[in-house]
Amino acid sequence: MSYRDWVQTELKQLSQSLGLNYTPLKEIEDRLTKIRSGMEKQDIEALLVVQKMDFYYLSGTTQDGLLFVPLEGKPLLMIKRELERGKLESPLEDVVALNSIHELTFLIQKYWGRLPYSLGLELDVLPVRDYFKYQNLFPGTRLLDAFSILRDARKIKSPLEINLMRVAGEIGLKVFEKGKEILKEGMTEIQFGGLLEAAAKQYGHEGILRVRSLNYEAYTWHVLSGPCGGIISQSDSPMGGLGLSPAFPVGASLRPIRAHEPILVDFGTCYHGYQVDETRMFSIGKMEQKFIDAYYACREIHDAVLEEIRPGVDCETIFVKTLRLADKLGYKDSYLGAPGLQTSFIAHGIGLELNEFPFIAKGQSYPLEERMTFAIEPKIVFPGEGSVGIENTLVVTQNGYQILTPVEQDIFEV
Amino acid sequence: MSYRDWVQTELKQLSQSLGLNYTPLKEIEDRLTKIRSGMEKQDIEALLVVQKMDFYYLSGTTQDGLLFVPLEGKPLLMIKRELERGKLESPLEDVVALNSIHELTFLIQKYWGRLPYSLGLELDVLPVRDYFKYQNLFPGTRLLDAFSILRDARKIKSPLEINLMRVAGEIGLKVFEKGKEILKEGMTEIQFGGLLEAAAKQYGHEGILRVRSLNYEAYTWHVLSGPCGGIISQSDSPMGGLGLSPAFPVGASLRPIRAHEPILVDFGTCYHGYQVDETRMFSIGKMEQKFIDAYYACREIHDAVLEEIRPGVDCETIFVKTLRLADKLGYKDSYLGAPGLQTSFIAHGIGLELNEFPFIAKGQSYPLEERMTFAIEPKIVFPGEGSVGIENTLVVTQNGYQILTPVEQDIFEV
Repeated sequence: MSYRDWVQTELKQLSQSLGLNYTPLKEIEDRLTKIRSGMEKQDIEALLVVQKMDFYYLSGTTQDGLLFVPLEGKPLLMIKRELERGKLESPLEDVVALNSIHELTFLIQKYWGRLPYSLGLELDVLPVRDYFKYQNLFPGTRLLDAFSILRDARKIKSPLEINLMRVAGEIGLKVFEKGKEILKEGMTEIQFGGLLEAAAKQYGHEGILRVRSLNYEAYTWHVLSGPCGGIISQSDSPMGGLGLSPAFPVGASLRPIRAHEPILVDFGTCYHGYQVDETRMFSIGKMEQKFIDAYYACREIHDAVLEEIRPGVDCETIFVKTLRLADKLGYKDSYLGAPGLQTSFIAHGIGLELNEFPFIAKGQSYPLEERMTFAIEPKIVFPGEGSVGIENTLVVTQNGYQILTPVEQDIFEV
Repeated sequence: MSYRDWVQTELKQLSQSLGLNYTPLKEIEDRLTKIRSGMEKQDIEALLVVQKMDFYYLSGTTQDGLLFVPLEGKPLLMIKRELERGKLESPLEDVVALNSIHELTFLIQKYWGRLPYSLGLELDVLPVRDYFKYQNLFPGTRLLDAFSILRDARKIKSPLEINLMRVAGEIGLKVFEKGKEILKEGMTEIQFGGLLEAAAKQYGHEGILRVRSLNYEAYTWHVLSGPCGGIISQSDSPMGGLGLSPAFPVGASLRPIRAHEPILVDFGTCYHGYQVDETRMFSIGKMEQKFIDAYYACREIHDAVLEEIRPGVDCETIFVKTLRLADKLGYKDSYLGAPGLQTSFIAHGIGLELNEFPFIAKGQSYPLEERMTFAIEPKIVFPGEGSVGIENTLVVTQNGYQILTPVEQDIFEV
């Protein structure tokens, strides 16, 4: 049997037996309809989709390649490596080999008849060198920024996407349950985080979380105990932790976890590319009352946000309300970070990436819409002492919201 | 105590007690000397270093920020978040806050007297949007591609860097030993990979491997058993594996590992940002003779490459010799991949990233130099059946080489 035949028969069967699902054509077509409406508004005749998650969203595969999406006509999926798997994974009809970048314009011309007058590219992430290459390959074409088209399409999730996030949430449920079993005094933060992650992978978590950014790295072992919870680091989050070295100065460290201190576990899970993010508090024995009180303040802010969630509500308005509530509860200076180092968001959109739209944050004045998904995470930080918080991922429904991270919300005291 | 004081006293002490090391000023100065020599050759008056690993290489910190390196005068480290940790981690003298990107030119002018006539940027990774932003901020400045300056400086490692890679290699040694203890029939690939990774983190591995690329993701759970070793995927490597979904179609899968099949474990480790990469074969009971024979062919190719390693030897010449040897050994069609899908490299440079210079590969005709570090990985692939291989990371010495991955090289039969 040729390798090609093996992929289309035996590999297909193996994949199905292990629960790997492919995106149906109808789903991709619905997404393309949204994208084309954005292209029409911005007068873009075709898109060249380069970035892995946009590529997956519109093709169903993450094999290495490029996707040409004309406003009129069917998309052309060009695969560098590996073509047979691309054909297996993508429901798109036209899938061809791209042996070299120099074939790109030839393939487009052959397929579509000519090169487009305007071509949308993801300029928020596309490296400058690649941009110069496309300028040479498409000399008569206007190259335009198509990021907002993709961002706006992706911010509203389909029922299929929401369902994948729900499965990710169920993996998270098992992970936090496992955490209660394995947490022991004297274990280092990274040891606990590593074991949580090993469990998550066993349950189907894909290990890598994704952020749309040159330098921002996502990971799943954000375990911060005692004073490490009171350390601010590079990331735009209320606290960062110590990490393992100056090369990775965030998240879990080699510090042994002690009894009675707050242990913040911020753990995202990913299924078929779709992520949920959640945070719970653990402690070994009862944690100090100051942290328990602050945790319940986070819960109160969390619940107050939930009450606001429905289509049409302005994101920035919700954020400002939480500032007032934190102030009223006595946490003005420690809400969302150390004094002077506080972040200005309470929720971030989530799906294929951890920094999607919407943001419930300062300066983000736009309405919530049905089927937006985001993670809300009120946190309180005592610099040098510790931090507490809660985080849940939810979807906006017609009249309110649904939680996608069904873990119980009390402190996990072991 | 203010947070600032806490960072400079207690956080410093906590970091030291947990073995976090900071880069000494002398080391950074030596690196800057190499960089400046490259700048002089390319007539670049100043660099603006943006990308995380280049930034770490030249500043000692990975806090979020920008580094201005003039050809004449001292560098200016500008930190967005978090300034106090940046000051703690970097030995550079001039460290200031960068509250907004709009302050950038003001800070440079204030510090250096004027804006440079030419400014080097990492155009291989810098997003187009950021480039346009810098064009606006530096209207009278020529923006040039400085990637090759950084690449060429980083390809020769200092004794300090080689030592960090040696520590990473010692972590790897413990990980593979652990593998022998925990591998059991019926365990899934990802379960085994996840447990290896949890162990590695406990020993100090930083979890994230880094690749310089928009879309290429590195990870440490490349465990391929039986037919999964014979699956080609998106990555430019001999085999890719099944992975967990079309969103992550590489590496370990949910397939249960069986007795007597080849189990390829390609596992990188990272310490203080410095990585080593290695591959060993496991089996539960004896694996089929065909795979054992192929493994010893890989060993023969591996050892033949080692014999060639010394300063001055041409990289492409070594690669071509391995093709001839693989042919002679009877593996022409399965060496480095499935027929028609073979990769054309036998070694990749490694350090802060997995795809540094040099490459021992087709088209890479340049001499090896003392203190280059790379991973050599001869692999043989039987499509749909399995794959075998070995991989070691080494450093070129004055007269030969030293292995940085001291794991025993026989098949780990459990």
